[in-house]
Amino acid sequence: MDPNSNSLPPRVPLGVFCSSEGPDLRTLGVQAKESGQDFLVVPISRPQFKRYLFDEQVDFSLNKELRRTMENWREGNPFSLDDLFLRSVEFADMAVGKISEWIDLDSPDVQIRINSEIAMKQEIAWATHLGLSAVLLPFPNDSAFNYARSVHSILGVLAYTHVWLQVPLILQEQIAETKETITWERWNQFRTLCEHHVKLSIALELTADLPDNYILERWFGEPIKAVIVPTNIFLTNAKGYPVLSRKHQAFVRRLMRIRANFIISDTENRKNTTIGGTSTYQEYLRHLNRTMPELSEVEKFATGYQDYLQSPLQAVYHALLDRVQPNSQEITVIMVVGAGRGPLVTRSLAAAEKANRPIRVYAIEKNPNAFVTLQNMKAEVWGDKVTIAFSDMRRWKAPEKADIIVSELLGSFGDNELSPECLDGAQKFLKEDGISIPANYITYIAPLSSSKLHSEAAAYKDLVHFETPYVVMFQAVTQLADPQIVWKFEHPNKQLVVDDEGNTLTNFHNTRYSKNTFTITDSAILHGIAGFFESVLYKNITMSIHPKTHSEGMFSWFPIFFPLKTPIFLPGNSKINVHFWRLTDSRKVWYEWCVDHSLQIGAKNISLGTSVLHNVGGRSSWIGL
Amino acid sequence: MDPNSNSLPPRVPLGVFCSSEGPDLRTLGVQAKESGQDFLVVPISRPQFKRYLFDEQVDFSLNKELRRTMENWREGNPFSLDDLFLRSVEFADMAVGKISEWIDLDSPDVQIRINSEIAMKQEIAWATHLGLSAVLLPFPNDSAFNYARSVHSILGVLAYTHVWLQVPLILQEQIAETKETITWERWNQFRTLCEHHVKLSIALELTADLPDNYILERWFGEPIKAVIVPTNIFLTNAKGYPVLSRKHQAFVRRLMRIRANFIISDTENRKNTTIGGTSTYQEYLRHLNRTMPELSEVEKFATGYQDYLQSPLQAVYHALLDRVQPNSQEITVIMVVGAGRGPLVTRSLAAAEKANRPIRVYAIEKNPNAFVTLQNMKAEVWGDKVTIAFSDMRRWKAPEKADIIVSELLGSFGDNELSPECLDGAQKFLKEDGISIPANYITYIAPLSSSKLHSEAAAYKDLVHFETPYVVMFQAVTQLADPQIVWKFEHPNKQLVVDDEGNTLTNFHNTRYSKNTFTITDSAILHGIAGFFESVLYKNITMSIHPKTHSEGMFSWFPIFFPLKTPIFLPGNSKINVHFWRLTDSRKVWYEWCVDHSLQIGAKNISLGTSVLHNVGGRSSWIGL
Repeated sequence: MDPNSNSLPPRVPLGVFCSSEGPDLRTLGVQAKESGQDFLVVPISRPQFKRYLFDEQVDFSLNKELRRTMENWREGNPFSLDDLFLRSVEFADMAVGKISEWIDLDSPDVQIRINSEIAMKQEIAWATHLGLSAVLLPFPNDSAFNYARSVHSILGVLAYTHVWLQVPLILQEQIAETKETITWERWNQFRTLCEHHVKLSIALELTADLPDNYILERWFGEPIKAVIVPTNIFLTNAKGYPVLSRKHQAFVRRLMRIRANFIISDTENRKNTTIGGTSTYQEYLRHLNRTMPELSEVEKFATGYQDYLQSPLQAVYHALLDRVQPNSQEITVIMVVGAGRGPLVTRSLAAAEKANRPIRVYAIEKNPNAFVTLQNMKAEVWGDKVTIAFSDMRRWKAPEKADIIVSELLGSFGDNELSPECLDGAQKFLKEDGISIPANYITYIAPLSSSKLHSEAAAYKDLVHFETPYVVMFQAVTQLADPQIVWKFEHPNKQLVVDDEGNTLTNFHNTRYSKNTFTITDSAILHGIAGFFESVLYKNITMSIHPKTHSEGMFSWFPIFFPLKTPIFLPGNSKINVHFWRLTDSRKVWYEWCVDHSLQIGAKNISLGTSVLHNVGGRSSWIGL
Repeated sequence: MDPNSNSLPPRVPLGVFCSSEGPDLRTLGVQAKESGQDFLVVPISRPQFKRYLFDEQVDFSLNKELRRTMENWREGNPFSLDDLFLRSVEFADMAVGKISEWIDLDSPDVQIRINSEIAMKQEIAWATHLGLSAVLLPFPNDSAFNYARSVHSILGVLAYTHVWLQVPLILQEQIAETKETITWERWNQFRTLCEHHVKLSIALELTADLPDNYILERWFGEPIKAVIVPTNIFLTNAKGYPVLSRKHQAFVRRLMRIRANFIISDTENRKNTTIGGTSTYQEYLRHLNRTMPELSEVEKFATGYQDYLQSPLQAVYHALLDRVQPNSQEITVIMVVGAGRGPLVTRSLAAAEKANRPIRVYAIEKNPNAFVTLQNMKAEVWGDKVTIAFSDMRRWKAPEKADIIVSELLGSFGDNELSPECLDGAQKFLKEDGISIPANYITYIAPLSSSKLHSEAAAYKDLVHFETPYVVMFQAVTQLADPQIVWKFEHPNKQLVVDDEGNTLTNFHNTRYSKNTFTITDSAILHGIAGFFESVLYKNITMSIHPKTHSEGMFSWFPIFFPLKTPIFLPGNSKINVHFWRLTDSRKVWYEWCVDHSLQIGAKNISLGTSVLHNVGGRSSWIGL
């Protein structure tokens, strides 16, 4: 989560394309600052730099002099000052470089390919020397292997500068029958070849036609750093001002949310001799940004850190009403296991008061620091109604049995914070007809595309981080299918077998295995598996972080992400099986996961392979018992 | 290459299956030694060990006592002595363990799954404790994810013991329409889940019907450690003895070549109460082994290390005949560039004598130690006919120009030992109409499946070894398609552009890029790319390590192997594009490679993704200029 986020939409960074045929950078820079531009996209070199890229194929055995000139350039002569549009560091802080348009890295002519690579490297090296934050590169054609290789070889040596690859939402030359995912597939191939390099990101180019929403959705799993807005996609409103269609507006606002840089591309005036020409478009974008709906509560991660406690209060209240007749003098014994600093104790007391039922509360806590707070709370707030005990609930000797056990041990994956094991241990001091709050929890998974989350795991360059689940706010992600149930735990566990002291024997009954099948209609890349939980606290009082049933205004849990070591490319009409295990030995609990995928062609199912098993034997991540 | 290999076929290790219902291991062991068995495949435990695997689903909430018994066992009680067939280390050195047949790791019943895993771990831990060399595991069913996971978790903790997975060539239950690759696919899924672990190998089970030869071929790319020969696949010859069909014989002999252990499975007498019953089969297998054809010359890597020099001698001889009239007094200047210890000088002198043409020879060598040998050779053998020069040929100032340049700078990939760069450098002292021997070299590639080669690269657990080509004798490999031309170099290079001193300028003219498309009919796993060369020394005198045109009796070059970081599963009817680059900067030459693959469905071509680029910028392997 971004700790600086707040509910005011941040100012959107705006820029504009400039041509080398217009004023020089100093003039442009001054104009830009006056007209409120944040940055300029400018050519690194002038067209004359092309002189070494011979337009026609040359037979060098006939023209050795020409070849010698070229060889001298290839040896690495510096730019001449006249070659450069971006000549000095002045205004470099507001410039994004653009490589020369004549560079063609997949030309069938080997001389053009070689010289293009040298020219691109020279331009980008200059941009890096000036400390530019980014360089804009054109969209690759459909077999841009040499382009990708050349870019990859540069990515490794960039210091501060990033590479933005221009990617249109829809291809201009795209023919009717071409699938809408084609530009994504081309991007995906390019960045796969570049090993998902963190310095390679997208400058997404909006188009007059937008693809279907579910195609738009997938871009949010990708590293978008910039958005190119051509002026010819604007409509003109009644007052003659440029506006965007509603669908464009919605998409642009979502792109503003992920803090993209916006670049206006003046399609009417490609030479762009002045900056002013785009000001009405620019004002419109600023207007869209200012009038953005407030961030939702969950996105804000508002300060209301305690709000999740409303549901347990309700649950205890209703359990008390159901269990004890009105005006009965019967005292209900409530045990809060894993009491922490006491919020559930306070809520239980409040619930009892609201229900008008007498209670006696035990608060069990094993953390010595939290226990100090509990002692304070008892002394200053709760008084005699509450007995506090310093112990692990699995080993505590209860002085009496409980009517209601209340706990808050759920993790984002439901059972990933040992709730099953702890509540098994507490079950021995719950009456035969006692109530467990929560009564159950169900774990859900969904296939996820998120180059951001994958890059973050990959950045560690080790196995452990690919075999460790991450609890993380999902921002740059695309969920590839609806979540499905993986498994469920119920409390009290009627199947539990205990020894004479009421202790559970082995923990094997808390192991689980599940295979879930998902259908993926459009081609996509699978980076990992998202996890969620739903829990019934008591009867119809539930808590959920499942996207479709998410408890309103509850901010306590982010989803969990299980990465895959190698991202899996899924062609359209893929079927994936996600295998998940919850495993245990005497010392720990852990998860393992793997994915196999296949292609559906009519009635046929063609296997496309299997991932490795992740976290075998809990080698990388586990929870200690 | 195995340094111990020699032309006598080594004794084939033979074993037999034993049942726990027959005599005890000591009796079996004595019988086995007497009857010449090398090892026995024996059950680790007796059937009674099954008692904790309840045949029927038990409702443990109704029968808690039973559950408690089970839980106690699950906690990890030791075997009782009566449970074990393999009781002590006595004869353990000749035993291969076999896990209990009732173990079912993919049962729909969770209790059976859990207990099967515990039982398997217990049995294998015992086998490891006894120091058994291997444990035999049954063939997985078609969704054996939990089985694979359980095995993987064991592979990591095995000390000395290996796991052999039994894999039939053809499934018994295989129906007519099932493709012949099904058992390979299942094996491939299993070992992929196990991350290609080096301790997991195959016990290949022969079947009465054998699949097509090209399906048999693929098994040689896999880690076969044992071969199971059921007695019911034998035919009976005129004398009443068991024999194998010709096709079986040929396959068995190839399996003997890769040093597999052979296990006879007595299908008539499953209880196998005595060892003697299989002796006729055993003798037959020993006979097949003894009467194996001699290893081919290349496989022996015979001592004739100099034989490749026959071709250069022929080439120089014919070049002299073509260039100089008989009885002419014209002296031909031959320069041997990269003379080493002088063999090509000696051969050139021999060729001149044979051709009866006077020559003057220059021998240029930059290695100081080799140059000492050259000085010796000149003093003691060659005399005045030969001038020796200590220099890099690219920098040598020649006293005169050469009629013929002779060199031996070829690598397995043709140009991978800087032959293009060195011969460019030497070209300045070759006459305008001079001859270069070799005249050209062509590089070929083919897609390769070889779990052995991949494991060897993977064993280093780093990036460098996946981005380094290996020159290696191909033994456990399957070539998935015929080789194709990648690129070619010619000498003298008519296109070469040099400065006033005759030095080449940049080296960009020696860069290459090639995309080769291969069609893969049957499903397979691609581990890397094989490389070969063909060279024309002079006119029709050639050298080749291309499998189809390999120079007879030439042992000087093994093929080259370029690994892929992640093996690629190729479904049947795949198309792969292999992209190869030869690249250069001012200090080095290197290769980069990547593979993209797709599926052909009728006229449609469905992309299945792209590998990463290997060795970007020569980061892992290169040749210094």
